[in-house]
Amino acid sequence: MFGISDGSLRFRLVKNSTPAPHAPLPAARDKLLFTPGPLTTSLSVKEAMLHDAGSWDVEFNTVVAGVREQLLKLAGLSREEGWETVLLQGSGTFGVEAVFQTCVPPQGKVAVLANGAYGERIVQMLKHARIEHVVVRSAEDTPHEPAALDALLTQDRTVTHVAVVHCETTTGILNPLEPLGRIARKHGKLFIVDAMSSFGALPIAFESCCIDFLISSANKCVEGVPGFSFVLCRRKALMACESFARSLSLDLCGQLKAFEKNGQFRFTPPTHAILAFAQALQELELEGGIPARERRYRRNHQTLLEGMSALGFRPYLRPADQSCIITAFHTPSDPKYSFEAFYRELSARGFIIYPGKLTQVDTFRIGNIGRLFPADLEQLVAAIGTVMKEMGCAVPVK
Amino acid sequence: MFGISDGSLRFRLVKNSTPAPHAPLPAARDKLLFTPGPLTTSLSVKEAMLHDAGSWDVEFNTVVAGVREQLLKLAGLSREEGWETVLLQGSGTFGVEAVFQTCVPPQGKVAVLANGAYGERIVQMLKHARIEHVVVRSAEDTPHEPAALDALLTQDRTVTHVAVVHCETTTGILNPLEPLGRIARKHGKLFIVDAMSSFGALPIAFESCCIDFLISSANKCVEGVPGFSFVLCRRKALMACESFARSLSLDLCGQLKAFEKNGQFRFTPPTHAILAFAQALQELELEGGIPARERRYRRNHQTLLEGMSALGFRPYLRPADQSCIITAFHTPSDPKYSFEAFYRELSARGFIIYPGKLTQVDTFRIGNIGRLFPADLEQLVAAIGTVMKEMGCAVPVK
Repeated sequence: MFGISDGSLRFRLVKNSTPAPHAPLPAARDKLLFTPGPLTTSLSVKEAMLHDAGSWDVEFNTVVAGVREQLLKLAGLSREEGWETVLLQGSGTFGVEAVFQTCVPPQGKVAVLANGAYGERIVQMLKHARIEHVVVRSAEDTPHEPAALDALLTQDRTVTHVAVVHCETTTGILNPLEPLGRIARKHGKLFIVDAMSSFGALPIAFESCCIDFLISSANKCVEGVPGFSFVLCRRKALMACESFARSLSLDLCGQLKAFEKNGQFRFTPPTHAILAFAQALQELELEGGIPARERRYRRNHQTLLEGMSALGFRPYLRPADQSCIITAFHTPSDPKYSFEAFYRELSARGFIIYPGKLTQVDTFRIGNIGRLFPADLEQLVAAIGTVMKEMGCAVPVK
Repeated sequence: MFGISDGSLRFRLVKNSTPAPHAPLPAARDKLLFTPGPLTTSLSVKEAMLHDAGSWDVEFNTVVAGVREQLLKLAGLSREEGWETVLLQGSGTFGVEAVFQTCVPPQGKVAVLANGAYGERIVQMLKHARIEHVVVRSAEDTPHEPAALDALLTQDRTVTHVAVVHCETTTGILNPLEPLGRIARKHGKLFIVDAMSSFGALPIAFESCCIDFLISSANKCVEGVPGFSFVLCRRKALMACESFARSLSLDLCGQLKAFEKNGQFRFTPPTHAILAFAQALQELELEGGIPARERRYRRNHQTLLEGMSALGFRPYLRPADQSCIITAFHTPSDPKYSFEAFYRELSARGFIIYPGKLTQVDTFRIGNIGRLFPADLEQLVAAIGTVMKEMGCAVPVK
């Protein structure tokens, strides 16, 4: 047997209904997640999932309609100006892939700007779908250079779409949407933005960034739970793609047509995750919208940087390129340091951090998005100091 | 504003934080879902979602490993005998499509047995993926005839896979897996079973039914919440398909390799839905496994049939072809009957039923799976009688 132990509502491994001798006792509260997501969410967001809703029922589909409305509003967009939002079951990756599977015509070609794992993931999607593509790579610590895109599009006229990741959570780097989008538009290309970990945390000017398709996910900076992604797009650009979809599940045109026909998902929606997201959107509004959320995340980030800097940790990125979403830190060179022990000891104290994902440099990552406040970052930093000392590492670290 | 009203945890539309004048007051409890899913689940299953888990964390991935183990055990399968289970984000349809997108080689051809909307959905998937296929249709009230499949496979040697829906929830009809699977095996074809609404409710003998791939979903008869599907398959058959996947998200080989490498999903898992599913599996075991669950569903179904029959309603299917999952009833011919009013009045009394999905005949459907008991079906039937009379229809109905 496994799952939740009697009455305690924890998700530890339980053998034969009683904890195995080596299993720790369940803690009084959940560990805090300093990750790129899934994130720590408010209790009220999770409590919204204590209901079973019928996917065909008008009451549930009123919530779905409200979520779609609210997402447009949050993005500063409107139907009158031709914008739409499509929810899609699955993780954020499913939403990103759905845009390519649905919107690139058989003879299309995508220019992918890549400076991290999520840009490379787009390349993998295009390979799987046998969609022609060209990749413009920049170093993992360097934002994309608009001139490089301009040169590519001047030289290669067969490109039809340009794709970029806004905040590459591999490093936390922010790529410059506006100059890149303007160049794509100048050359008549459609501009696709993976804004997975930035939407909700940073203002995004869709019109001046010339965005045609933007993808994000329920469990990122809106602070919902995982279960679906959403695509904000120009309706005309999407509906021009009706015959292209290479997958039924990932067909965004079909999905939008169903929402427009009867307000319903085509296939079983993650009803509980949607109820949680409706609550999360309400809490984002109560907090003061994106500007207030950005302020909180910036305070979190500042608290983290100051604390980590006092402990001698060095961020991987130059400050100008660093987002307030997630930060990669260089692994200490101290021979007594091991990420495994570091992670385990922080976890035992109730803090979950994230491993690095860089190809060349050893790092670990700390996210500061989700239902976290500066005091949580202070406690994390204090625990990091304690754990480093317990591991026998010199502090400040080297 | 929309979403949950203050403190009441209901998912009704709320305007400006106070209910609109026409909005009903939130009820004390959720409506019961007499549908094919999402279903009514136990409170403890939903309470398992009151936790945020890190997708990279060992504690969470221990739960994932436990879920995969338990699913194999529930199916009566073992790794030693070459079986595997793969969880995939998204609804059940995503899991079914993933099997075709991953497992049919470029020159492959699928024979689809279709007698309802879910068989036809498989045809749509194959069209989207540009996979060659042939469809053997039988009438919506008639189970597939093994001899017809035998004739097709004898005549068309280019077919590589046979696909069938076990319980077609369009009607509730049960298709005969064992003779169909034996014929597929005799001709050397792989046998793919969509067991969305039957797995967990009915025993399925994988070996004697010659099943290679079987797909079901978290929110069906295991009584979890929606968010992911799962595929039970012969590992060898799956891993022989490594280069075929036409989609990254739907690539089941990649998904299995990640589980085998580090126990993790490749892309953000629906952590809350998985915690709920672990709890649901535990509750299925506590109930007495599939035999006990089948008995409860059969009692529910019997209660429904007897009650509806006393009210004069006629089931669409012959008794021998009818599953204990969901039942389609003929729409009453009484001119005073309208489905819309019928649905609305039952909903107002706390009962959510389901519309028909047949192409030729007017029906409505009542499911009896999920956390429902005979007493719930009795109450539903009583409410149906009351609503019919209030609509001015003759009872027993004509």
